[in-house]
Amino acid sequence: MDNKEKNNNFEIIRSGTITSVPGFYAAACHCGIKKSGKPDICVIYAPDGSVCSGVFTTNKFMAAPVIVAKKQLKKTGNIKAIIINSGIANACTGRKGYINAMETVKTGADYLGISCNNVIVSSTGVVGEQLPMEKIKKGIKQCVSDLSHSGGHSAAEAILTTDLKIKEIAVKIKTDGGKNIVVAGMAKGSGMIEPNMATLLSFITTNIKISKELLDEILKNEIAASFNSITIDGCQSTNDMLLVISNSESGVEINNKNSKFYNNFKDALEYVLKYLARQIVLDGEGATKLIEINVINAKSKSDARKFAFGIANSNLFKTAIFGEDLNWGRINASLGSVSCSLNPEKVDIYLSDILIVKDGIGAGFNGKVTGKLMKEKEIKFTVDLNCGKEKFKVLTADLSFDYIKINALYRT
Amino acid sequence: MDNKEKNNNFEIIRSGTITSVPGFYAAACHCGIKKSGKPDICVIYAPDGSVCSGVFTTNKFMAAPVIVAKKQLKKTGNIKAIIINSGIANACTGRKGYINAMETVKTGADYLGISCNNVIVSSTGVVGEQLPMEKIKKGIKQCVSDLSHSGGHSAAEAILTTDLKIKEIAVKIKTDGGKNIVVAGMAKGSGMIEPNMATLLSFITTNIKISKELLDEILKNEIAASFNSITIDGCQSTNDMLLVISNSESGVEINNKNSKFYNNFKDALEYVLKYLARQIVLDGEGATKLIEINVINAKSKSDARKFAFGIANSNLFKTAIFGEDLNWGRINASLGSVSCSLNPEKVDIYLSDILIVKDGIGAGFNGKVTGKLMKEKEIKFTVDLNCGKEKFKVLTADLSFDYIKINALYRT
Repeated sequence: MDNKEKNNNFEIIRSGTITSVPGFYAAACHCGIKKSGKPDICVIYAPDGSVCSGVFTTNKFMAAPVIVAKKQLKKTGNIKAIIINSGIANACTGRKGYINAMETVKTGADYLGISCNNVIVSSTGVVGEQLPMEKIKKGIKQCVSDLSHSGGHSAAEAILTTDLKIKEIAVKIKTDGGKNIVVAGMAKGSGMIEPNMATLLSFITTNIKISKELLDEILKNEIAASFNSITIDGCQSTNDMLLVISNSESGVEINNKNSKFYNNFKDALEYVLKYLARQIVLDGEGATKLIEINVINAKSKSDARKFAFGIANSNLFKTAIFGEDLNWGRINASLGSVSCSLNPEKVDIYLSDILIVKDGIGAGFNGKVTGKLMKEKEIKFTVDLNCGKEKFKVLTADLSFDYIKINALYRT
Repeated sequence: MDNKEKNNNFEIIRSGTITSVPGFYAAACHCGIKKSGKPDICVIYAPDGSVCSGVFTTNKFMAAPVIVAKKQLKKTGNIKAIIINSGIANACTGRKGYINAMETVKTGADYLGISCNNVIVSSTGVVGEQLPMEKIKKGIKQCVSDLSHSGGHSAAEAILTTDLKIKEIAVKIKTDGGKNIVVAGMAKGSGMIEPNMATLLSFITTNIKISKELLDEILKNEIAASFNSITIDGCQSTNDMLLVISNSESGVEINNKNSKFYNNFKDALEYVLKYLARQIVLDGEGATKLIEINVINAKSKSDARKFAFGIANSNLFKTAIFGEDLNWGRINASLGSVSCSLNPEKVDIYLSDILIVKDGIGAGFNGKVTGKLMKEKEIKFTVDLNCGKEKFKVLTADLSFDYIKINALYRT
């Protein structure tokens, strides 16, 4: 994260959570879905109303909460509450799953005393099982009665599944006087992570005055280089959902690109999204390394993206990195199998700043130096295609024994 | 393998090898590439000349032997000798690699006393290293002096890398009188196996009189449902090569579809190709299960193929199978992420004959019965898309701890 580069315009709030944004409340509890007894449901609440934008999975087996959330967002941009459960994804659950998602909406609306139109639901966990509605209802009741300004951290815990770490952040943009802008977010990730829209659950809160149209546009632009530039295992989930929800508490208006705080807000949102996306890769299932793949000088952005993901999703490449083996032939092989035109004899590859492949063949590098770099936690490759001017960066993790362990024994 | 169905027209030769075909000679030895001391070079020789067809990797990082072999096949269909080394792939080796491949051709031609135009080379192993030419030359000399009718089995051993098992077969078609037709083959596979042309090394010998054009056509048709229908890890190699080489020893002519033995030969070739392709999956790196995925009633063959490979290459699906966990949601999720149109509510999925998903949601099956099926070595899924009439079958393996082990530590 280019921390130093970016944080001129904003400052990171220590121990920031989604409720670091004034006007947002949250609470979480264990309603009984997770056998571990850990928190498995939470409610985020913005009583004064808000504008909400979302991006969702493009998987055709869309989970019930995704169908319901998309519908709710279409009806009205005014979302006041988000109810999230973990443990059961309510995906591939048919008509009953849809009814359960709608009932979750209604329960939340009733307890909060608001309209069903102002509530969104979200789920993550095992596919194919129905939600235990009695437990869900009790959980919502409990959360609503516990809502507080300090509930953000426990909400961030309640949305996790196989994640090892809580992922949350908040940043503050100082305005000239009056109230500050705060942008905060939380996310869950772990496995089944490849983009094509947000590929996981993530919820961003902020307090600017903005139209739904402009928020949609900003989100669409910012998502490409953050959540849509990561992959753990190339598998796309049925439940991916990322919501940005803004109350207008700060009073700071952002109407268009010329608004005073437009760029500051965009930078802060970009920072929050990239931070969370990076945390998801760092906490990928079984991940021992964070791998950055930069494809540069490609013919088109789309080509650059395909080559970068081609490498990032190669099991042979990922296992080599896990083994700390600089088997660059696997990078070449994965590039060569992407269905984009490529001149192999023009390909240069760098590990950090060390040239390891020149004109498509081994560059005769110093094995001791590269060996040391391969042992680091974060590994960076740059692939120069030397055939254009476009670039794309992807973050991924290695493929380890623990990925197999976690996913072979997920339900046992 | 539908053994009973197909073997009416031919019989399997016990302990058959590529030299079970009259007029073919082979030999192998350890020339010093493999540290293990195992055979790492072999020569196949058909002194009376032959017609040869080949299919090759479509990877843009094509290895030197692939470039040379394609060139040789273009020059003349008349190939008398194939020289194969294992341990070093001679891929991503630039101009020097090309020169070494050509020198291998020349060395073979010299020792055999034939024209360079009649020799093809093939390599498999580590990418990015140059061939040790002195060792290669000594190896060729040794092999040429050891050539025999019984050398097929040792040749099949010499082409292996991380393979655990030798893969070879020979079948005999009885003709009315005179000489029989024999079709034989050997293959190496293991990792980096996904088709798009033959994705591995495989060499088929036979003794029919046929034109190069007709042999090309038959091979092209037969490859789709055999070698191009398997995947181990979705990674495409730089060295894939499959050659069919036919001397005319039997005297049986196959001129066109109406030739008496056209269908018998086609069936036998199909059997040999499918048998070897299946052996490659069974012996996939770390494979503990053979998984058959049948996608049926798709809109088009191309769609059926994409859906089948979509499932077969899902790491989450493959790890679930390794864990003997019938996590059918992962099949749904992988189907839903394929970029082909799909109606999730029409999808039915069967494990063997048990309906596990009906209309896209869990079918309420008997867990005891399916649990038993999941423990078997061979697992069969049928995915009925209910939207057309086309189908495609893919064979794949599970993703296990040993895949990681083999590939993380490949070069150490």
